[in-house]
Amino acid sequence: MVDRKGFTLWLTGLSGAGKTTLAELLAIELSTRGVDIEILDGDDVRTNLSKGLGFSKEDRDTNINRIGYVCRLLSRNGVGVLAAVISPYRAVRDEVRSAIERDGAEFIEVFVKCPIAVLAERDVKGLYKKALAGEIKGFTGVSDPYEEPLAPAVVVETDRESVSSSIKRIIRELERRGLIREVVVSPPLIRRRVFSQRSGALAKESRPAKAATRIASLPILQRIFLKRPLRSKHRNESGYRAHS
Amino acid sequence: MVDRKGFTLWLTGLSGAGKTTLAELLAIELSTRGVDIEILDGDDVRTNLSKGLGFSKEDRDTNINRIGYVCRLLSRNGVGVLAAVISPYRAVRDEVRSAIERDGAEFIEVFVKCPIAVLAERDVKGLYKKALAGEIKGFTGVSDPYEEPLAPAVVVETDRESVSSSIKRIIRELERRGLIREVVVSPPLIRRRVFSQRSGALAKESRPAKAATRIASLPILQRIFLKRPLRSKHRNESGYRAHS
Repeated sequence: MVDRKGFTLWLTGLSGAGKTTLAELLAIELSTRGVDIEILDGDDVRTNLSKGLGFSKEDRDTNINRIGYVCRLLSRNGVGVLAAVISPYRAVRDEVRSAIERDGAEFIEVFVKCPIAVLAERDVKGLYKKALAGEIKGFTGVSDPYEEPLAPAVVVETDRESVSSSIKRIIRELERRGLIREVVVSPPLIRRRVFSQRSGALAKESRPAKAATRIASLPILQRIFLKRPLRSKHRNESGYRAHS
Repeated sequence: MVDRKGFTLWLTGLSGAGKTTLAELLAIELSTRGVDIEILDGDDVRTNLSKGLGFSKEDRDTNINRIGYVCRLLSRNGVGVLAAVISPYRAVRDEVRSAIERDGAEFIEVFVKCPIAVLAERDVKGLYKKALAGEIKGFTGVSDPYEEPLAPAVVVETDRESVSSSIKRIIRELERRGLIREVVVSPPLIRRRVFSQRSGALAKESRPAKAATRIASLPILQRIFLKRPLRSKHRNESGYRAHS
């Protein structure tokens, strides 16, 4: 039987804001903490659940309701679901929240925030250029509405903070809610990890707590950067896409 | 993390053959054995995942693929999914099987078999009458094909056997595959249950093993018959719908 409370972490925000990047990094971090994780990514889901649906308000709502239905089934069976979907309309996001909470699981809304100007500059998929030129109709944030969450559990500002800082704040929220265990690293263990992982480069860090904080984010990011090709020539310091 | 192998028990067969009845009874039995269970019922799923889809071969296949996608996500997280869907086409059932097995979960095909003549007599929803009169087009088994499974794990013949016998055979298959634990009832325990549950009526049963077999099916059926209104005036001995 389910011995762990399931949850749906709902990452909402404009196209290119960093939802998928966050979901993928969070999945690795949460898996290492023993949580069963599923990512439901907007693009992925449109293939598997919503082929044929368009981008009218009605079709978008139907799409979100279907994703919500799957989140609900998984969450109430103890799975941690990371949903990375634009989901521009507040009302349907709230419907999903209610359905999930009714089943005793948690719904955590994370607003992945980034100004349109920055997104148009990053423009990884070249969509903003087309949308701003009027070549794509009904593009969220340009020619279609995006209703910002009124009371999100976490707001991450991906043009101002590093990915690892965003991840940490989201993880902290999950810990605060008791959905994942806090990781406590004892001083001797830290010292060992410092030496082995960065060949002594961090060994001069005198305060174990400070070292722990820095190290916690390292393995994840290293693994990801090795696995994922850089999507633009200049990845900025933050780890989100470059905007040069 | 998932400590139990998930599975999808796929109940395929004509409308009215007994798929939903079996899924609901199995869900109770399996829940008491500590398995996390979800029922995906054809009608239910058409509302949540496939509104707008019709009954052409293409739409039916899309519907089954969506159900299969959800079964896969749940099964690979240790859930036991009971899918009760007509699913008339063999090829798409096999696609679902492959997808689920690829993820390390099990797919158990159960053919819920009942001759058209019996179904037309039962005709709980009055659909066969209409289909045979040509008022419903593309009705599986009447004016649309049903491709029987070639090698189902279990075949239940709902016009010839009792519900409890069908349930037992399906449960035995799950036990055989090691997906659920076998329930062993020790003799003293049996004797107590005999007295308490049927006010001594079964107390004269001399062989504990025989009593255990009979009693195993009683609480489930009693609970169900109290909860579910009889759908036709005459429920036959088998527990499936009456065909008088």
